Amino acid sequence: MNYEEMDSHLTRKERQGKQSKKKLALEMLSSWVVYFFIGVGTAFLAAGVQISVELIAHQKFELIKDYFDQCDKKGCLFKPVLIWVGINAGITLVGAALVTYVQPMAAGSGIPLIKSYLNGVRVPGLLSLRAFISKCVGVVLSILGGLACGKEGPMAHSGGIMAAGLGKGRIPWFGKDINLYGLFRNDHNIRDLVAAGAASGVSAAFGAPIGGTLFSVEEAASFWNTELVWKVFFSAMIACFSTNVLLSAFEGHPTQLSNPGLVRFNVFPNLTFDLIEIPVFIFIAAIGGLTGSLFVVMNYKLTVFRQKKSMRKSMRKSMRKSMRKPSSNATRCAVLQECTSRLPSNLRAVRDLGCSGVSHNAMSTMFLTTPEGCLKSLLHDPLGEYSRHATSRNFAQLLARLVSGPPLLVSAVAICVDVNCYHVTFALILNLEKAFCAKDVGKYALIGAASQLGGILRTTISLTVIIVECTGDITFGLCIMLSLMISKWVGDFFTTGLYDMNVEVSGIPLLSWEPPPLCEDVHVSDFMSQPVMTLLSVERVGHIYDCLSGESFNGFPVIEQDPSYDLMYRGKLKGVILRHQLLVLLKKKMFCPEGQMPTASICLKDFENPYPVPQRLKIQDIELSDADKQCVMDLTPYMNLTPYTASISFSMPRVFRLFRGLGLRHLVVVNDNTEPIGMVTRKDLAKYRAEIKKGMLHMEQLTVENR
Amino acid sequence: MNYEEMDSHLTRKERQGKQSKKKLALEMLSSWVVYFFIGVGTAFLAAGVQISVELIAHQKFELIKDYFDQCDKKGCLFKPVLIWVGINAGITLVGAALVTYVQPMAAGSGIPLIKSYLNGVRVPGLLSLRAFISKCVGVVLSILGGLACGKEGPMAHSGGIMAAGLGKGRIPWFGKDINLYGLFRNDHNIRDLVAAGAASGVSAAFGAPIGGTLFSVEEAASFWNTELVWKVFFSAMIACFSTNVLLSAFEGHPTQLSNPGLVRFNVFPNLTFDLIEIPVFIFIAAIGGLTGSLFVVMNYKLTVFRQKKSMRKSMRKSMRKSMRKPSSNATRCAVLQECTSRLPSNLRAVRDLGCSGVSHNAMSTMFLTTPEGCLKSLLHDPLGEYSRHATSRNFAQLLARLVSGPPLLVSAVAICVDVNCYHVTFALILNLEKAFCAKDVGKYALIGAASQLGGILRTTISLTVIIVECTGDITFGLCIMLSLMISKWVGDFFTTGLYDMNVEVSGIPLLSWEPPPLCEDVHVSDFMSQPVMTLLSVERVGHIYDCLSGESFNGFPVIEQDPSYDLMYRGKLKGVILRHQLLVLLKKKMFCPEGQMPTASICLKDFENPYPVPQRLKIQDIELSDADKQCVMDLTPYMNLTPYTASISFSMPRVFRLFRGLGLRHLVVVNDNTEPIGMVTRKDLAKYRAEIKKGMLHMEQLTVENR
Repeated sequence: MNYEEMDSHLTRKERQGKQSKKKLALEMLSSWVVYFFIGVGTAFLAAGVQISVELIAHQKFELIKDYFDQCDKKGCLFKPVLIWVGINAGITLVGAALVTYVQPMAAGSGIPLIKSYLNGVRVPGLLSLRAFISKCVGVVLSILGGLACGKEGPMAHSGGIMAAGLGKGRIPWFGKDINLYGLFRNDHNIRDLVAAGAASGVSAAFGAPIGGTLFSVEEAASFWNTELVWKVFFSAMIACFSTNVLLSAFEGHPTQLSNPGLVRFNVFPNLTFDLIEIPVFIFIAAIGGLTGSLFVVMNYKLTVFRQKKSMRKSMRKSMRKSMRKPSSNATRCAVLQECTSRLPSNLRAVRDLGCSGVSHNAMSTMFLTTPEGCLKSLLHDPLGEYSRHATSRNFAQLLARLVSGPPLLVSAVAICVDVNCYHVTFALILNLEKAFCAKDVGKYALIGAASQLGGILRTTISLTVIIVECTGDITFGLCIMLSLMISKWVGDFFTTGLYDMNVEVSGIPLLSWEPPPLCEDVHVSDFMSQPVMTLLSVERVGHIYDCLSGESFNGFPVIEQDPSYDLMYRGKLKGVILRHQLLVLLKKKMFCPEGQMPTASICLKDFENPYPVPQRLKIQDIELSDADKQCVMDLTPYMNLTPYTASISFSMPRVFRLFRGLGLRHLVVVNDNTEPIGMVTRKDLAKYRAEIKKGMLHMEQLTVENR
Repeated sequence: MNYEEMDSHLTRKERQGKQSKKKLALEMLSSWVVYFFIGVGTAFLAAGVQISVELIAHQKFELIKDYFDQCDKKGCLFKPVLIWVGINAGITLVGAALVTYVQPMAAGSGIPLIKSYLNGVRVPGLLSLRAFISKCVGVVLSILGGLACGKEGPMAHSGGIMAAGLGKGRIPWFGKDINLYGLFRNDHNIRDLVAAGAASGVSAAFGAPIGGTLFSVEEAASFWNTELVWKVFFSAMIACFSTNVLLSAFEGHPTQLSNPGLVRFNVFPNLTFDLIEIPVFIFIAAIGGLTGSLFVVMNYKLTVFRQKKSMRKSMRKSMRKSMRKPSSNATRCAVLQECTSRLPSNLRAVRDLGCSGVSHNAMSTMFLTTPEGCLKSLLHDPLGEYSRHATSRNFAQLLARLVSGPPLLVSAVAICVDVNCYHVTFALILNLEKAFCAKDVGKYALIGAASQLGGILRTTISLTVIIVECTGDITFGLCIMLSLMISKWVGDFFTTGLYDMNVEVSGIPLLSWEPPPLCEDVHVSDFMSQPVMTLLSVERVGHIYDCLSGESFNGFPVIEQDPSYDLMYRGKLKGVILRHQLLVLLKKKMFCPEGQMPTASICLKDFENPYPVPQRLKIQDIELSDADKQCVMDLTPYMNLTPYTASISFSMPRVFRLFRGLGLRHLVVVNDNTEPIGMVTRKDLAKYRAEIKKGMLHMEQLTVENR
């Protein structure tokens, strides 16, 4: 992505015009408006998802309840079970098909991809309308299908897509576009909007505007400043607020604002804690960290396994339906688990139902309602009722793990312990709790859940704030922080976090915050791309065309031909011109026979309008006659006059800081005479990655695939 | 400050050694330990301040109460009033003297200075032991003196000082130093530690670890990354936790942890709000923004007035005692106010006391307890009791304002509405509230206080979190956010925030996040310093000595003499060497007669040990014989081999981004042949500043004084 702002003759001219002041004010104002609408849009989305899930789940529950009631008397209890399995499997399959055939980008939680995008990697199809629809429908279907999948990833992703869409200001209408406004059509602005969208998605999902903002800052955004954080915070706040209003309106009391988010563990009664409880929390947190990193390892193994498998076409086809995941890793495993682990536990549930007769069946709460409902009752109901069932479920899961021989199944079941499915930890904690004979379980369950999450995600600050905002209790925040911190440390000792692992596995050249350690002896000359493809400042169109179609480089150094060299294309660096600029220039035919002045004129808008260029303007679509190819194009007015450069003696950490601090996409390496001799791209830098495993530092040089 | 990391032959050699891996691990581990101790130290500090204030205030109150009780019967009520005024004035004068004569850096809230420091400006004496002591004693004295001053600024400042002290790892002991460890002795590490110290100071003061971290990120720190935020968060958490333990222990129940901070408005009963209340909040917020910016304007006027006055020595001397401020702007005005406004209100208080007899006197709560106690009762007690007294106080203040003719007094009284003294707003809100006849006042008072603060400080996110963490109620956070947002907007429309204003007035070259707008036409050549003072890579010691004593530049470009030029000192840029390196090299006598090899050897530690160099090593202290001056010094092993450079055609925003993104102190401007032709320092950049006043954009070129 081209995050760097241009500095060409053209931009200088246009920005110095008299209207630039007015334009600046307009931009500032309209950006606030857009951030406002991002918040509102995300809120509508969140409320829509929530309401549809609740409505349909209610229908499902009613249906099954009827059968239960009927069969309880007749003794045909297998019927509702079968119907339940059937409905869930059906819904899940629809979701899986949607993701597989409509837009594969909508698979997975979406957060790793959003993170990569904000780090500066263009992920094709990530922000498309298709991905948006698949994501939204997919998340509804997966929750309805009884899958253990979280809303925060999908919400962050679809919030980001919506923000990008709003930023582009363009409505696709039967193949044509209706242009509304074009102020934000560059990578820089769209990136900021996507960060805001992700934050408002999380904010709407949890009712946690501060947490959402921090999430965006900590986990997702790579380049930001105070101004941006304010805007992100603003839209997160609006999102939280509007979700609140919408859900309150849905429940019939639009002015009371009692629904601050989709996931809401009711407010706890005043949680108090004593100093002697801290060691217990630490112990729980350590276990959380351990299980969290175990989860990450298993997820890693499974992902690698799937990647390998997907190479073999024959296997792939047969496994597609069961292997693909709608909006979470959990589809296939949930289906499996439904068939293996549900049986023992539900048998017991059925027995409970049979013996208690009219009394409310606790187990049905755990299996038939939405995940939040389940979580809520786990956290708030008294101990006696649940520990038994939780244990039974835990037992069932263990059983399923042992029974299912092939490693795939083991991993699959393990993966069911997905981000938002705290069941295993809960069960563990509940068991532990029984041994401790303490009074209130909710507290420990909360710590357990937090540390499990912390062990998986490793996002300490934002997670703390989100949990605090969700539970509505601030005094307990200190304990949550402590447990998150410790579980992060324990987890970090073994593996990286889930998102980072996902990014790593998918081979995306993400740049971390700091240069990898022990790289001082690596120099630019070791990793720069050579030779560079340079252009003259007045260049033949044919050569430009050949360059564009022959190479996939994104930026081309422009040089001034040094007459003293016989060798072509050698001279002092004058500027850098980007691929998309060249494409636009060719498209607009901004060239002329040698010695003449071009007749066409071009302004900044023409470069921004066909955003995003790589999708909308391809070199194959541009047709040039042979006469055209003999013309020359003057690149001087359009090129970036002052590209950042590195000298050949720069070491790796220095180049890294330059890239990371300025958000560069490519850097021209020059020699002492300011002649370009190489280019460094983020792929070259991302090759070097340091890893801390089991307390030891490893350095590896990755081979990053081209994409 | 030299935030950039060095990249010389020497560092490369030392970092590639076999021990570098071990050293890296050691550094990582010990940095966590240091961050831990920063938290603990700040907590001890906070608890110490809190406990001493409470103990002494209790003594004071007891004393006055005795007199009140005696005089109530005898009818000599003027006596306790006089005693009260006497004690307060005495304490305040001690504080003022402390600041004036011991360390002037301890005056003011400290936050603007810490902010400047973290932005990269070296503020002499800011992090000294003297400042620390004056600050700590000063804040205790000012609170005891009944001044309206906040703890968060002093706590942030002294936390920062403590962090820097811990980082230096050196105990001053009767003029000598005991060296403990030297791992963190460079600007880069110390900066990070100071950020953590400031965060833990705020965290300990408010019991708000998240808020403290955010404060450090939003307001203070200018360069940071996720790793740093985690460490800052860690120490903030430790600080909050330890304060908790310490204060609980002071109250006799060390394991219950019921004291999460110094400022704690007790937890509110469940605050609910309705949609129709939002407009009221918005209205309050707008008023808060207006009064906030009014406060900033008055503060500005007063500061400028004081600066002008302090030029005239004669006036200065006479006004010193009444003009200087201990840890807040409020001393002199508080003294004035005590003599003008206290009289009417206390007369009434006395009358109350007289008529109600045995009943608890509400007014005495407002005047005799610590500010927190006052705030607490304002926020929590029922309406009837306070609105009257608040009104009376408000009236008294208005009266004082009208009575005191000269503008100094007006400003002085206005300034009494200091950061933590919410009285005026409260009174306003309470009056408003009476008109609305609502049930609970606390809610509106909270919103009023928040928006007043927001209007003054303009730190939306961290303030929201701090207030939410202080009140312990998360559901109301949305309203607080909203009101902070609006008051910020309203305030921003008129002025900048208080801290930024302070920084601006004191002429510190602070670099904001984004380059000033409309600067595209300003080029490097317009603002770079010319000519540059260059050194040869093998340079005569005499010339180096002359350079160092003659110029105050911090970095010198090192060039390779081009034999084709007759003109001395012209050639290709080879590196940059810093002033403090040259000082150390001269001190260590790393030179030799021409043609020989130097006998002494030097390692990285030698450069780091005398940190901070400008204070500890002066050019005047280095004595060189004439023979020494004829020697030559080879700078090649020590200089920074790969300085970041800018070409002459760079525009202002580009240079700005380079500076801001990489945290540079100076940038060498080179021509096409990589010959240094100029230097850009942060002072050159800070000259250009854009201001938005009343919705219009102004561009000004400031003259930054040399310091």
